Amino acid sequence: MNAPIDFFFDFSSPYSYIANEWIDAVAARHGRTVRRRAILLGATFQVAELKSPVAYPMKREYSLRDFERSARFEGLPYALPPVFPIPTHNAARVFWWLADTQGEVAAAAWARAGLRAVFTRGVQLQDAAALKALATEQGLDADEAEGVWSNPVWKARLKHANDEAIAAGIFGAPWFIVDGEPFWGNDRKPQIERWLASGPF
Amino acid sequence: MNAPIDFFFDFSSPYSYIANEWIDAVAARHGRTVRRRAILLGATFQVAELKSPVAYPMKREYSLRDFERSARFEGLPYALPPVFPIPTHNAARVFWWLADTQGEVAAAAWARAGLRAVFTRGVQLQDAAALKALATEQGLDADEAEGVWSNPVWKARLKHANDEAIAAGIFGAPWFIVDGEPFWGNDRKPQIERWLASGPF
Repeated sequence: MNAPIDFFFDFSSPYSYIANEWIDAVAARHGRTVRRRAILLGATFQVAELKSPVAYPMKREYSLRDFERSARFEGLPYALPPVFPIPTHNAARVFWWLADTQGEVAAAAWARAGLRAVFTRGVQLQDAAALKALATEQGLDADEAEGVWSNPVWKARLKHANDEAIAAGIFGAPWFIVDGEPFWGNDRKPQIERWLASGPF
Repeated sequence: MNAPIDFFFDFSSPYSYIANEWIDAVAARHGRTVRRRAILLGATFQVAELKSPVAYPMKREYSLRDFERSARFEGLPYALPPVFPIPTHNAARVFWWLADTQGEVAAAAWARAGLRAVFTRGVQLQDAAALKALATEQGLDADEAEGVWSNPVWKARLKHANDEAIAAGIFGAPWFIVDGEPFWGNDRKPQIERWLASGPF
């Protein structure tokens, strides 16, 4: 029995979107499952004293170009949303509600739908109406979803997930843990592939 | 005639060391030459309002692990130097002196020797005696090398190289420019390889 791959992501992370389209197939090829974990980069950045790459003018210019090119490199559709980055608390709370009450498959479907909505259609997940519409599209009850993201229980669940991530040394996304080994970034795919294929190197 | 690949590096950058061991072979496979450019990350970081990844405690821990793993991934020897990062002004001035007076081959040999010295033997290039010893090992006149790094002409040459890099939007290393396209980081190798093989994507 191989350990699952832990995959930490933020709904507002372009590289998380790209890696999320890849992780299931590579896991399956190597007899692994994926355990997704929605986090808030804002929380990890604060503790790690970091900022988004787009918060620095010079890095921003390169990063916007690299987001797009990295998506093209994988053959994925991509468009920078009109507001970026966006707060993703509510989408992440819905994720944890699905993960804890319906399981990994439902949570993974929500993750995929949310990331695709942001990075291919510019859906602003911080907007309650847009998020409710996405919930409906995904076959969820929109009012129930809104009840979830307003509920202290699911707020606490997300906070717990962030705290766990921070305690594990995680400060960015996507972040993978494979057999205890941490890999940060969509660009660590080649290293992850080798690890999955032939073990520690 | 294909344009040369511009390769910007800092002698104190582990990912520059790793990429420097790769760039010549990949360039040759695709009928390209490499034009190396020694820069000081300290100068680019200041303008870009960035800091070294090892300046942030959480990022430091991951980065030190990733430097080592990324070298192992390529089958390269690697050891974190006893002091890190180090000032690399003098080594970079010698680089520019060689580039301008002897040409690319001599400068590339110095780049390789310097990066290997730092990241396989812990040579402290900021130390005059250590840098003179390295110059001697490389068949240079150590006193002449010392004269170079103390000379306002070569100080100005390095400053000019930094200013040019900053004007081109460069804030990190290794940094590659291929046909005008900027690629930042050792982890952009797969994208660079595809670009070289089949052009813009």
